[in-house]
Amino acid sequence: MSDDEYYSEEKHGPHAYFELGDFALSSGETLANARLAYKTQGTLNAAKDNAILFPHMWSGTSASMEGFVGVGRPLDPERYFVIFPGQFANGFSSSPSNTPAPHNGGAFPNVTIADDVIAQHRLVTEQFGISELQLVTGWSMGAEQTYEWAVRYPDMVKRAAPFAGTAKTTPHDYLFVRAHENALKSDPAWADGFYKNSRDVAVGLRRHAELWSVMGLCQEFYKQELWRSVGFESLDGFITGFWEAYFEPMDPNNLIWMGWKWRHGDVSLNTDGDLVKALGRITAKTTVVAFGNDMFFPPADIEAEASMITGAKFQIIESLWAHFAMFCMDERDKNAIDGVFAELLAS
Amino acid sequence: MSDDEYYSEEKHGPHAYFELGDFALSSGETLANARLAYKTQGTLNAAKDNAILFPHMWSGTSASMEGFVGVGRPLDPERYFVIFPGQFANGFSSSPSNTPAPHNGGAFPNVTIADDVIAQHRLVTEQFGISELQLVTGWSMGAEQTYEWAVRYPDMVKRAAPFAGTAKTTPHDYLFVRAHENALKSDPAWADGFYKNSRDVAVGLRRHAELWSVMGLCQEFYKQELWRSVGFESLDGFITGFWEAYFEPMDPNNLIWMGWKWRHGDVSLNTDGDLVKALGRITAKTTVVAFGNDMFFPPADIEAEASMITGAKFQIIESLWAHFAMFCMDERDKNAIDGVFAELLAS
Repeated sequence: MSDDEYYSEEKHGPHAYFELGDFALSSGETLANARLAYKTQGTLNAAKDNAILFPHMWSGTSASMEGFVGVGRPLDPERYFVIFPGQFANGFSSSPSNTPAPHNGGAFPNVTIADDVIAQHRLVTEQFGISELQLVTGWSMGAEQTYEWAVRYPDMVKRAAPFAGTAKTTPHDYLFVRAHENALKSDPAWADGFYKNSRDVAVGLRRHAELWSVMGLCQEFYKQELWRSVGFESLDGFITGFWEAYFEPMDPNNLIWMGWKWRHGDVSLNTDGDLVKALGRITAKTTVVAFGNDMFFPPADIEAEASMITGAKFQIIESLWAHFAMFCMDERDKNAIDGVFAELLAS
Repeated sequence: MSDDEYYSEEKHGPHAYFELGDFALSSGETLANARLAYKTQGTLNAAKDNAILFPHMWSGTSASMEGFVGVGRPLDPERYFVIFPGQFANGFSSSPSNTPAPHNGGAFPNVTIADDVIAQHRLVTEQFGISELQLVTGWSMGAEQTYEWAVRYPDMVKRAAPFAGTAKTTPHDYLFVRAHENALKSDPAWADGFYKNSRDVAVGLRRHAELWSVMGLCQEFYKQELWRSVGFESLDGFITGFWEAYFEPMDPNNLIWMGWKWRHGDVSLNTDGDLVKALGRITAKTTVVAFGNDMFFPPADIEAEASMITGAKFQIIESLWAHFAMFCMDERDKNAIDGVFAELLAS
């Protein structure tokens, strides 16, 4: 399978495209013919006051979070209009894998969380004419975008629920992300981002998956052999069938450019480096969620930021799936996450 | 500097050598002309009852733990005879880096913690005629050896103090160690272990150091920028000047073969896989120490094993140096570790 086949509507369902034109990036560079590939569920009402924005995590696409929407669940498409806005470098929106020269592959410009959110804001306001979002929520890099939304456009964000992510990337998290980027780059076939086919970088993708197997879950997950609960019969079978299989079809450059974005996430760029001041801008009713045992967004780091947000509720969802509780491999994780949405939307 | 220069008495002080002859390994292979390079401090008394054995950690040498011995300190050389017995693959004892063909470099046989301990037992009994050790102690892989000693030769081990290590390697720890071995092997210059000079594998050594920068300390260490306390002025300066500089002169094969040994550590091989039964053999008065925030020997894993040892005391030393509390970069860590020795030796 080539990257073209992975980043396809066959795999991820239909997308709509919002054309951004020549988009000015935070870096000063311009991305020509930029666009966001987005998905929606539900119907925007006439008052345009039933919208929820759900950006996705690193490595994901606009389809990644669709599983949280369901009739009778808190994110009910009969009640809410849920927008999955996509982000740069995800393989559907403007990305290293789909941008023509001069910004193709390894020449794609660095993009930031702020760039994503500014583009998403244009989608929300220009395409849909929405001036208030009932909820902005996201996991991991989606949480970074949630924070950026709540800081940058406080008047538009009525409620916010960042899951397992930070407003400002911590140094350890930065080192982790750089290490997994470097694992991809370590493959000579990566060729500074100018490989012909993502499959040529299979060794890099495997090295990268190996780092994720170490940092992505937690010690106790492996000790209890929780991989058995999702159908694997050996540790190595899980490494191959879960971690390697997850990353194997993806485009290395897309992962690297999303990684760069992740590790440079910092809402305090809005306030001359003052994180307290940035988070002090948030007026949304906010529930900040950490996942227990998360090795790169540990609860302590998340709680420290929650304490800077006026009236925010901080909550830990304990799961041996650690950072990946959001995958809802355990029904209890799904119920706990739905519980956060239900409580926040009822308030 | 070549590996020959690093594994030198100029760098690590004088060693004595104990010749093991043709040494039968647990694997069934024989290591010809095997030897242990060891060091001692203090004097063995006439009754031969004042000996302490202090094996070293992965990546170390017999010199690594000498800093814990000092007049007026618990490991007082005026009172105790402290043996630093070395281990296979440490660059001084029989190792990939110093063994002639046919077992040179990448052809060095896999060695185990049990092989080390059996060789150390011969050193202790044949060279010194010692039948009882006042204390066996070690950190990390040295803790693995401490456990193996206490299980294999219970009558000889009066006291045991394993620091930040396990009797049986956990699956997550196994994945971590395999990942850092693979980082070394990822360098094409590694050449299946048949490089000419360890410096040829500089890229692999750097990739390997990068994994250590992620897993070796803890999130809070970096958040508090504790690297400033040891003289670094930037995060990248610390990565280069601490992690890369530490590993840079070492021999990649030695690290890989010690790594294999580490991740296969398992005292239950003495009891047909029954860990409770193995640890039940221990008669030593035992203090089991974990370091807070340790990301690959987390306190929970260590405590679980301590609970299987009759009468063992379990203790956590909290340090943001996490696994590397044993480096005593913070005086409080040194004092806490000395306190463990003092209490245990007084009992």
